[in-house]
Amino acid sequence: MANFGVDDLRVVNPYEVAFREAVSAVGGAHVLKTARIFETVAEAVADCSLVVGTTAAQKRELQQPIELVAPGMQGIRTHAGPVALLFGSEKFGLSNDDMSYCHMLLRIPTAPGTPSMNLGQAVAVCLYEFNRSGDPKPRRAGTDAMAEGADAEQLTKMLLDVLEKSGYTNRITSVSTEHKIRRWVRRLRLTHRDVPLLLGILRQVLWKIEDRSK
Amino acid sequence: MANFGVDDLRVVNPYEVAFREAVSAVGGAHVLKTARIFETVAEAVADCSLVVGTTAAQKRELQQPIELVAPGMQGIRTHAGPVALLFGSEKFGLSNDDMSYCHMLLRIPTAPGTPSMNLGQAVAVCLYEFNRSGDPKPRRAGTDAMAEGADAEQLTKMLLDVLEKSGYTNRITSVSTEHKIRRWVRRLRLTHRDVPLLLGILRQVLWKIEDRSK
Repeated sequence: MANFGVDDLRVVNPYEVAFREAVSAVGGAHVLKTARIFETVAEAVADCSLVVGTTAAQKRELQQPIELVAPGMQGIRTHAGPVALLFGSEKFGLSNDDMSYCHMLLRIPTAPGTPSMNLGQAVAVCLYEFNRSGDPKPRRAGTDAMAEGADAEQLTKMLLDVLEKSGYTNRITSVSTEHKIRRWVRRLRLTHRDVPLLLGILRQVLWKIEDRSK
Repeated sequence: MANFGVDDLRVVNPYEVAFREAVSAVGGAHVLKTARIFETVAEAVADCSLVVGTTAAQKRELQQPIELVAPGMQGIRTHAGPVALLFGSEKFGLSNDDMSYCHMLLRIPTAPGTPSMNLGQAVAVCLYEFNRSGDPKPRRAGTDAMAEGADAEQLTKMLLDVLEKSGYTNRITSVSTEHKIRRWVRRLRLTHRDVPLLLGILRQVLWKIEDRSK
Protein backbone atom coordinates (compact mmCIF):
# COMPACT_ATOMS: atom_id res chain seq x y z
CA MET A 1 0.00 0.00 0.00
CA ALA A 2 2.77 2.43 0.95
CA ASN A 3 4.59 1.66 -2.32
CA PHE A 4 1.56 2.77 -4.30
CA GLY A 5 0.54 5.80 -2.24
CA VAL A 6 -2.54 4.23 -0.65
CA ASP A 7 -2.82 4.65 3.10
CA ASP A 8 -6.29 3.97 4.46
CA LEU A 9 -6.02 0.37 5.70
CA ARG A 10 -9.09 -1.07 7.37
CA VAL A 11 -8.90 -4.50 8.88
CA VAL A 12 -11.94 -6.63 9.69
CA ASN A 13 -11.51 -9.01 12.65
CA PRO A 14 -7.74 -9.52 12.41
CA TYR A 15 -6.00 -12.32 14.29
CA GLU A 16 -5.06 -10.12 17.24
CA VAL A 17 -1.63 -11.47 18.13
CA ALA A 18 -0.25 -11.28 14.60
CA PHE A 19 -1.78 -7.87 13.99
CA ARG A 20 -0.42 -6.31 17.19
CA GLU A 21 3.03 -7.71 16.42
CA ALA A 22 2.94 -6.25 12.93
CA VAL A 23 1.81 -2.83 14.16
CA SER A 24 4.42 -2.62 16.90
CA ALA A 25 7.31 -3.92 14.79
CA VAL A 26 10.30 -1.60 14.54
CA GLY A 27 10.11 0.13 11.19
CA GLY A 28 6.44 -0.78 10.89
CA ALA A 29 5.00 1.25 8.07
CA HIS A 30 2.84 4.34 8.57
CA VAL A 31 -0.01 2.44 6.90
CA LEU A 32 -0.04 -0.18 9.65
CA LYS A 33 0.24 2.32 12.50
CA THR A 34 -2.82 4.20 11.30
CA ALA A 35 -4.84 1.11 10.35
CA ARG A 36 -8.34 0.88 11.81
CA ILE A 37 -9.99 -2.29 13.03
CA PHE A 38 -13.66 -3.09 12.41
CA GLU A 39 -15.83 -5.96 13.53
CA THR A 40 -17.84 -6.26 10.33
CA VAL A 41 -17.41 -5.57 6.64
CA ALA A 42 -20.54 -3.37 6.83
CA GLU A 43 -18.85 -1.03 9.33
CA ALA A 44 -15.55 -1.03 7.45
CA VAL A 45 -17.16 0.16 4.20
CA ALA A 46 -19.87 2.36 5.74
CA ASP A 47 -18.52 5.61 4.22
CA CYS A 48 -17.59 4.11 0.83
CA SER A 49 -19.84 4.58 -2.19
CA LEU A 50 -18.15 1.87 -4.25
CA VAL A 51 -17.07 -1.46 -2.81
CA VAL A 52 -14.97 -3.67 -5.06
CA GLY A 53 -14.19 -7.27 -4.12
CA THR A 54 -11.34 -9.40 -5.41
CA THR A 55 -11.61 -13.08 -6.25
CA ALA A 56 -9.87 -15.92 -8.05
CA ALA A 57 -13.43 -16.71 -9.26
CA GLN A 58 -12.94 -20.45 -9.18
CA LYS A 59 -14.92 -21.99 -6.37
CA ARG A 60 -18.23 -20.19 -6.32
CA GLU A 61 -20.92 -19.23 -8.67
CA LEU A 62 -20.67 -15.50 -8.58
CA GLN A 63 -23.70 -13.29 -8.32
CA GLN A 64 -21.95 -10.04 -9.15
CA PRO A 65 -20.49 -8.55 -12.30
CA ILE A 66 -16.83 -9.57 -12.55
CA GLU A 67 -14.15 -7.79 -14.55
CA LEU A 68 -10.46 -8.25 -15.18
CA VAL A 69 -8.40 -5.93 -13.03
CA ALA A 70 -7.05 -3.74 -15.87
CA PRO A 71 -10.36 -2.60 -17.41
CA GLY A 72 -12.09 -2.73 -14.02
CA MET A 73 -9.64 -0.29 -12.41
CA GLN A 74 -10.41 2.37 -15.01
CA GLY A 75 -13.94 2.76 -13.70
CA ILE A 76 -12.67 2.73 -10.14
CA ARG A 77 -10.11 5.47 -10.77
CA THR A 78 -12.76 7.86 -12.01
CA HIS A 79 -15.37 7.04 -9.37
CA ALA A 80 -16.67 10.12 -7.52
CA GLY A 81 -16.34 9.23 -3.83
CA PRO A 82 -14.44 6.85 -1.57
CA VAL A 83 -13.78 3.39 -2.98
CA ALA A 84 -13.10 0.29 -0.89
CA LEU A 85 -10.99 -2.53 -2.33
CA LEU A 86 -11.97 -5.64 -0.39
CA PHE A 87 -9.58 -8.60 -0.04
CA GLY A 88 -10.36 -11.91 1.63
CA SER A 89 -8.19 -13.87 4.01
CA GLU A 90 -5.10 -15.67 2.73
CA LYS A 91 -6.74 -19.07 3.06
CA PHE A 92 -10.37 -18.65 2.11
CA GLY A 93 -10.71 -15.43 0.15
CA LEU A 94 -13.95 -13.49 0.41
CA SER A 95 -17.05 -15.31 1.68
CA ASN A 96 -20.42 -15.03 -0.03
CA ASP A 97 -21.44 -12.76 2.84
CA ASP A 98 -18.38 -10.50 2.27
CA MET A 99 -19.12 -10.38 -1.46
CA SER A 100 -22.74 -9.36 -0.92
CA TYR A 101 -21.42 -5.92 0.13
CA CYS A 102 -19.63 -5.47 -3.22
CA HIS A 103 -20.85 -3.53 -6.23
CA MET A 104 -18.49 -5.46 -8.47
CA LEU A 105 -15.68 -7.99 -8.38
CA LEU A 106 -12.19 -7.89 -9.89
CA ARG A 107 -10.12 -10.82 -11.05
CA ILE A 108 -6.39 -10.86 -11.74
CA PRO A 109 -5.75 -12.98 -14.84
CA THR A 110 -3.75 -16.02 -13.69
CA ALA A 111 -2.65 -19.39 -15.04
CA PRO A 112 -5.57 -21.87 -15.09
CA GLY A 113 -3.85 -24.41 -12.82
CA THR A 114 -2.79 -21.87 -10.17
CA PRO A 115 -5.47 -19.19 -9.90
CA SER A 116 -5.26 -18.43 -6.17
CA MET A 117 -2.75 -15.73 -5.28
CA ASN A 118 -0.85 -14.80 -2.16
CA LEU A 119 -2.73 -11.96 -0.44
CA GLY A 120 0.12 -9.45 -0.40
CA GLN A 121 0.91 -10.12 -4.04
CA ALA A 122 -2.74 -9.72 -5.07
CA VAL A 123 -2.87 -6.36 -3.25
CA ALA A 124 0.37 -5.24 -4.94
CA VAL A 125 -0.89 -6.15 -8.41
CA CYS A 126 -4.26 -4.40 -7.85
CA LEU A 127 -2.68 -1.20 -6.52
CA TYR A 128 -0.03 -1.23 -9.25
CA GLU A 129 -2.86 -1.48 -11.79
CA PHE A 130 -4.80 1.25 -9.96
CA ASN A 131 -1.85 3.62 -10.43
CA ARG A 132 -0.73 2.43 -13.83
CA SER A 133 -2.54 4.46 -16.42
CA GLY A 134 -1.45 7.77 -15.01
CA ASP A 135 -3.48 10.66 -13.65
CA PRO A 136 -6.52 9.69 -11.71
CA LYS A 137 -9.21 12.20 -12.65
CA PRO A 138 -12.00 11.68 -10.15
CA ARG A 139 -15.33 13.20 -11.02
CA ARG A 140 -16.64 15.72 -8.52
CA ALA A 141 -19.10 14.30 -6.09
CA GLY A 142 -22.55 15.86 -6.44
CA THR A 143 -26.18 14.83 -6.10
CA ASP A 144 -25.49 12.10 -8.65
CA ALA A 145 -22.73 10.65 -6.47
CA MET A 146 -23.34 7.12 -5.39
CA ALA A 147 -24.90 6.26 -2.06
CA GLU A 148 -22.42 5.35 0.65
CA GLY A 149 -22.10 1.94 2.28
CA ALA A 150 -24.02 2.99 5.41
CA ASP A 151 -26.96 4.27 3.32
CA ALA A 152 -27.00 1.14 1.18
CA GLU A 153 -26.96 -0.98 4.30
CA GLN A 154 -29.81 0.98 5.93
CA LEU A 155 -31.88 0.45 2.77
CA THR A 156 -30.98 -3.25 2.76
CA LYS A 157 -31.97 -3.71 6.37
CA MET A 158 -35.26 -1.85 5.94
CA LEU A 159 -36.13 -3.78 2.79
CA LEU A 160 -35.36 -7.06 4.57
CA ASP A 161 -37.61 -5.92 7.40
CA VAL A 162 -40.38 -5.27 4.91
CA LEU A 163 -39.87 -8.65 3.25
CA GLU A 164 -39.91 -10.48 6.54
CA LYS A 165 -42.93 -8.67 7.95
CA SER A 166 -44.81 -9.07 4.69
CA GLY A 167 -44.23 -12.84 4.84
CA TYR A 168 -41.96 -12.91 1.75
CA THR A 169 -39.02 -14.33 3.68
CA ASN A 170 -39.28 -17.43 5.79
CA ARG A 171 -36.71 -18.35 8.39
CA ILE A 172 -35.20 -21.20 6.36
CA THR A 173 -34.20 -19.14 3.34
CA SER A 174 -33.45 -15.93 5.24
CA VAL A 175 -29.63 -15.97 4.96
CA SER A 176 -29.58 -16.45 1.19
CA THR A 177 -32.34 -13.87 0.84
CA GLU A 178 -30.29 -11.42 2.86
CA HIS A 179 -27.30 -11.88 0.52
CA LYS A 180 -29.52 -11.62 -2.53
CA ILE A 181 -31.13 -8.39 -1.35
CA ARG A 182 -27.84 -6.87 -0.26
CA ARG A 183 -26.29 -7.60 -3.66
CA TRP A 184 -29.34 -6.31 -5.47
CA VAL A 185 -29.29 -2.99 -3.60
CA ARG A 186 -25.60 -2.55 -4.58
CA ARG A 187 -26.29 -3.52 -8.17
CA LEU A 188 -28.76 -0.64 -8.47
CA ARG A 189 -25.91 1.84 -7.96
CA LEU A 190 -28.22 4.22 -6.14
CA THR A 191 -27.29 7.87 -5.93
CA HIS A 192 -27.40 10.11 -2.87
CA ARG A 193 -30.69 11.51 -4.18
CA ASP A 194 -32.33 8.07 -4.27
CA VAL A 195 -31.67 7.29 -0.63
CA PRO A 196 -34.20 9.54 1.22
CA LEU A 197 -36.85 8.74 -1.42
CA LEU A 198 -36.49 4.98 -1.03
CA LEU A 199 -36.19 5.14 2.74
CA GLY A 200 -39.43 7.15 2.81
CA ILE A 201 -41.23 4.56 0.68
CA LEU A 202 -40.00 1.66 2.76
CA ARG A 203 -40.88 3.40 6.03
CA GLN A 204 -44.39 3.98 4.74
CA VAL A 205 -44.79 0.34 3.64
CA LEU A 206 -43.45 -0.88 6.96
CA TRP A 207 -45.86 1.32 8.87
CA LYS A 208 -48.75 0.00 6.77
CA ILE A 209 -47.78 -3.66 7.34
CA GLU A 210 -47.30 -3.23 11.07
CA ASP A 211 -50.53 -1.30 11.36
CA ARG A 212 -52.43 -4.10 9.57
CA SER A 213 -50.97 -6.87 11.64
CA LYS A 214 -52.21 -5.28 14.85
CA MET B 1 5.59 -17.34 -10.79
CA ALA B 2 3.09 -20.23 -10.86
CA ASN B 3 0.19 -17.75 -10.89
CA PHE B 4 1.51 -16.20 -14.07
CA GLY B 5 2.61 -19.35 -15.90
CA VAL B 6 6.35 -18.82 -15.48
CA ASP B 7 8.30 -21.82 -14.21
CA ASP B 8 12.05 -21.58 -14.77
CA LEU B 9 13.29 -20.37 -11.37
CA ARG B 10 17.05 -19.99 -11.01
CA VAL B 11 18.46 -19.04 -7.65
CA VAL B 12 21.93 -17.59 -7.13
CA ASN B 13 23.58 -18.45 -3.80
CA PRO B 14 20.42 -18.88 -1.74
CA TYR B 15 20.54 -19.03 2.04
CA GLU B 16 20.62 -22.82 2.19
CA VAL B 17 18.49 -23.52 5.25
CA ALA B 18 15.60 -21.32 4.17
CA PHE B 19 15.75 -22.55 0.60
CA ARG B 20 15.74 -26.24 1.52
CA GLU B 21 12.83 -25.67 3.89
CA ALA B 22 10.86 -23.90 1.17
CA VAL B 23 11.55 -26.65 -1.38
CA SER B 24 10.63 -29.50 0.95
CA ALA B 25 7.50 -27.80 2.35
CA VAL B 26 4.29 -29.76 1.96
CA GLY B 27 2.44 -28.29 -0.98
CA GLY B 28 5.61 -26.60 -2.18
CA ALA B 29 4.94 -25.41 -5.69
CA HIS B 30 6.26 -27.15 -8.80
CA VAL B 31 8.30 -24.02 -9.50
CA LEU B 32 10.30 -24.46 -6.30
CA LYS B 33 10.80 -28.19 -6.74
CA THR B 34 12.35 -27.70 -10.17
CA ALA B 35 14.36 -24.60 -9.26
CA ARG B 36 18.06 -24.69 -10.10
CA ILE B 37 20.82 -23.24 -7.95
CA PHE B 38 23.80 -21.37 -9.38
CA GLU B 39 26.88 -19.93 -7.77
CA THR B 40 27.12 -16.85 -9.95
CA VAL B 41 24.80 -14.60 -11.94
CA ALA B 42 26.99 -15.31 -15.01
CA GLU B 43 26.20 -19.04 -14.83
CA ALA B 44 22.51 -18.46 -14.10
CA VAL B 45 22.00 -16.35 -17.23
CA ALA B 46 24.49 -18.17 -19.49
CA ASP B 47 21.82 -19.35 -21.97
CA CYS B 48 19.76 -16.13 -21.94
CA SER B 49 20.11 -13.60 -24.75
CA LEU B 50 18.36 -10.82 -22.84
CA VAL B 51 18.97 -10.12 -19.16
CA VAL B 52 16.66 -7.60 -17.51
CA GLY B 53 17.34 -6.29 -14.01
CA THR B 54 14.85 -4.73 -11.64
CA THR B 55 15.58 -1.79 -9.40
CA ALA B 56 13.96 0.87 -7.24
CA ALA B 57 16.54 3.15 -8.89
CA GLN B 58 17.13 5.23 -5.80
CA LYS B 59 20.52 4.57 -4.34
CA ARG B 60 22.88 4.25 -7.25
CA GLU B 61 23.80 6.12 -10.32
CA LEU B 62 22.67 3.71 -12.97
CA GLN B 63 24.81 2.92 -15.96
CA GLN B 64 22.13 1.12 -17.94
CA PRO B 65 19.04 2.20 -19.78
CA ILE B 66 16.09 2.09 -17.38
CA GLU B 67 12.44 1.82 -18.34
CA LEU B 68 9.13 1.68 -16.51
CA VAL B 69 7.86 -1.87 -16.29
CA ALA B 70 4.82 -1.40 -18.58
CA PRO B 71 6.58 -0.12 -21.72
CA GLY B 72 9.69 -2.17 -20.91
CA MET B 73 7.81 -5.47 -20.84
CA GLN B 74 6.54 -4.94 -24.38
CA GLY B 75 10.05 -5.29 -25.77
CA ILE B 76 10.70 -8.27 -23.53
CA ARG B 77 7.57 -10.11 -24.65
CA THR B 78 8.62 -9.97 -28.28
CA HIS B 79 12.29 -10.80 -27.71
CA ALA B 80 13.52 -13.74 -29.81
CA GLY B 81 15.21 -16.06 -27.32
CA PRO B 82 15.29 -16.80 -23.60
CA VAL B 83 14.91 -13.78 -21.30
CA ALA B 84 16.10 -13.62 -17.69
CA LEU B 85 14.35 -11.32 -15.23
CA LEU B 86 16.85 -10.63 -12.48
CA PHE B 87 15.75 -9.68 -8.95
CA GLY B 88 18.04 -8.71 -6.09
CA SER B 89 17.83 -9.83 -2.49
CA GLU B 90 15.07 -8.53 -0.23
CA LYS B 91 17.44 -6.28 1.68
CA PHE B 92 19.95 -4.94 -0.80
CA GLY B 93 18.48 -5.35 -4.27
CA LEU B 94 20.86 -5.93 -7.17
CA SER B 95 24.52 -5.00 -6.70
CA ASN B 96 26.47 -3.06 -9.32
CA ASP B 97 28.13 -6.34 -10.21
CA ASP B 98 24.73 -8.06 -10.70
CA MET B 99 23.53 -5.16 -12.83
CA SER B 100 26.59 -5.29 -15.08
CA TYR B 101 25.13 -8.50 -16.56
CA CYS B 102 21.91 -6.73 -17.57
CA HIS B 103 21.01 -5.34 -20.98
CA MET B 104 18.43 -3.08 -19.41
CA LEU B 105 16.72 -2.28 -16.12
CA LEU B 106 13.05 -2.09 -15.21
CA ARG B 107 11.47 0.07 -12.55
CA ILE B 108 8.00 -0.30 -11.04
CA PRO B 109 6.51 3.16 -10.55
CA THR B 110 6.14 3.68 -6.79
CA ALA B 111 5.39 6.47 -4.34
CA PRO B 112 8.43 8.75 -3.90
CA GLY B 113 8.71 8.16 -0.13
CA THR B 114 8.47 4.37 -0.32
CA PRO B 115 10.18 3.18 -3.51
CA SER B 116 11.60 -0.13 -2.28
CA MET B 117 9.25 -3.07 -2.71
CA ASN B 118 8.92 -6.45 -1.08
CA LEU B 119 10.64 -9.02 -3.33
CA GLY B 120 7.62 -11.29 -3.83
CA GLN B 121 5.36 -8.34 -4.60
CA ALA B 122 7.84 -6.92 -7.12
CA VAL B 123 8.00 -10.30 -8.86
CA ALA B 124 4.19 -10.53 -8.92
CA VAL B 125 3.79 -7.05 -10.43
CA CYS B 126 6.48 -7.71 -13.10
CA LEU B 127 5.00 -11.05 -14.14
CA TYR B 128 1.46 -9.65 -14.09
CA GLU B 129 2.68 -6.90 -16.42
CA PHE B 130 4.52 -9.46 -18.58
CA ASN B 131 1.22 -11.29 -19.15
CA ARG B 132 -1.07 -8.29 -19.26
CA SER B 133 -1.31 -7.19 -22.84
CA GLY B 134 -2.34 -10.56 -24.14
CA ASP B 135 -0.67 -12.80 -26.69
CA PRO B 136 3.06 -12.84 -26.55
CA LYS B 137 4.26 -12.99 -30.16
CA PRO B 138 7.93 -13.84 -29.96
CA ARG B 139 9.96 -13.30 -33.10
CA ARG B 140 11.65 -16.38 -34.47
CA ALA B 141 15.24 -16.73 -33.47
CA GLY B 142 17.61 -16.59 -36.46
CA THR B 143 21.06 -15.30 -37.27
CA ASP B 144 19.94 -11.89 -36.04
CA ALA B 145 19.01 -13.34 -32.65
CA MET B 146 20.90 -11.82 -29.77
CA ALA B 147 24.03 -13.42 -28.37
CA GLU B 148 23.46 -15.52 -25.27
CA GLY B 149 24.82 -14.75 -21.82
CA ALA B 150 27.69 -17.23 -22.10
CA ASP B 151 28.85 -15.71 -25.42
CA ALA B 152 28.61 -12.19 -24.05
CA GLU B 153 30.60 -13.25 -21.02
CA GLN B 154 33.29 -14.95 -23.13
CA LEU B 155 33.67 -11.74 -25.15
CA THR B 156 33.79 -9.69 -21.94
CA LYS B 157 36.50 -11.87 -20.44
CA MET B 158 38.58 -11.86 -23.59
CA LEU B 159 38.26 -8.10 -23.99
CA LEU B 160 39.31 -7.63 -20.36
CA ASP B 161 42.27 -9.87 -21.02
CA VAL B 162 43.25 -7.71 -23.98
CA LEU B 163 42.85 -4.53 -21.93
CA GLU B 164 44.93 -5.85 -19.10
CA LYS B 165 47.70 -7.26 -21.25
CA SER B 166 47.82 -4.11 -23.32
CA GLY B 167 48.32 -2.07 -20.15
CA TYR B 168 44.96 -0.26 -20.38
CA THR B 169 43.78 -1.59 -17.05
CA ASN B 170 45.75 -1.23 -13.88
CA ARG B 171 45.07 -3.26 -10.79
CA ILE B 172 43.54 -0.36 -8.84
CA THR B 173 40.72 0.39 -11.29
CA SER B 174 40.23 -3.16 -12.51
CA VAL B 175 36.89 -3.91 -10.76
CA SER B 176 35.14 -0.80 -12.06
CA THR B 177 36.65 -1.42 -15.48
CA GLU B 178 35.29 -4.95 -15.45
CA HIS B 179 31.78 -3.67 -14.72
CA LYS B 180 32.11 -0.99 -17.34
CA ILE B 181 33.24 -3.44 -20.03
CA ARG B 182 30.60 -6.00 -19.11
CA ARG B 183 27.84 -3.40 -19.34
CA TRP B 184 29.25 -2.06 -22.58
CA VAL B 185 29.28 -5.51 -24.21
CA ARG B 186 25.59 -5.97 -23.23
CA ARG B 187 24.67 -2.51 -24.46
CA LEU B 188 25.92 -3.41 -27.95
CA ARG B 189 23.14 -6.03 -28.21
CA LEU B 190 25.39 -8.26 -30.27
CA THR B 191 23.80 -10.89 -32.49
CA HIS B 192 24.83 -14.53 -32.87
CA ARG B 193 26.62 -13.57 -36.07
CA ASP B 194 28.77 -10.98 -34.28
CA VAL B 195 30.18 -13.40 -31.73
CA PRO B 196 32.63 -15.51 -33.82
CA LEU B 197 33.78 -12.39 -35.68
CA LEU B 198 34.60 -10.48 -32.49
CA LEU B 199 36.12 -13.48 -30.76
CA GLY B 200 38.37 -13.95 -33.80
CA ILE B 201 39.49 -10.33 -33.69
CA LEU B 202 40.16 -10.43 -29.94
CA ARG B 203 42.07 -13.71 -30.22
CA GLN B 204 44.26 -12.22 -32.90
CA VAL B 205 44.93 -9.07 -30.85
CA LEU B 206 45.73 -11.16 -27.81
CA TRP B 207 48.16 -13.34 -29.75
CA LYS B 208 49.91 -10.23 -31.07
CA ILE B 209 50.27 -8.67 -27.62
CA GLU B 210 51.54 -11.86 -26.04
CA ASP B 211 53.96 -12.45 -28.92
CA ARG B 212 55.38 -8.94 -28.54
CA SER B 213 55.87 -9.17 -24.82
CA LYS B 214 58.05 -12.24 -25.16
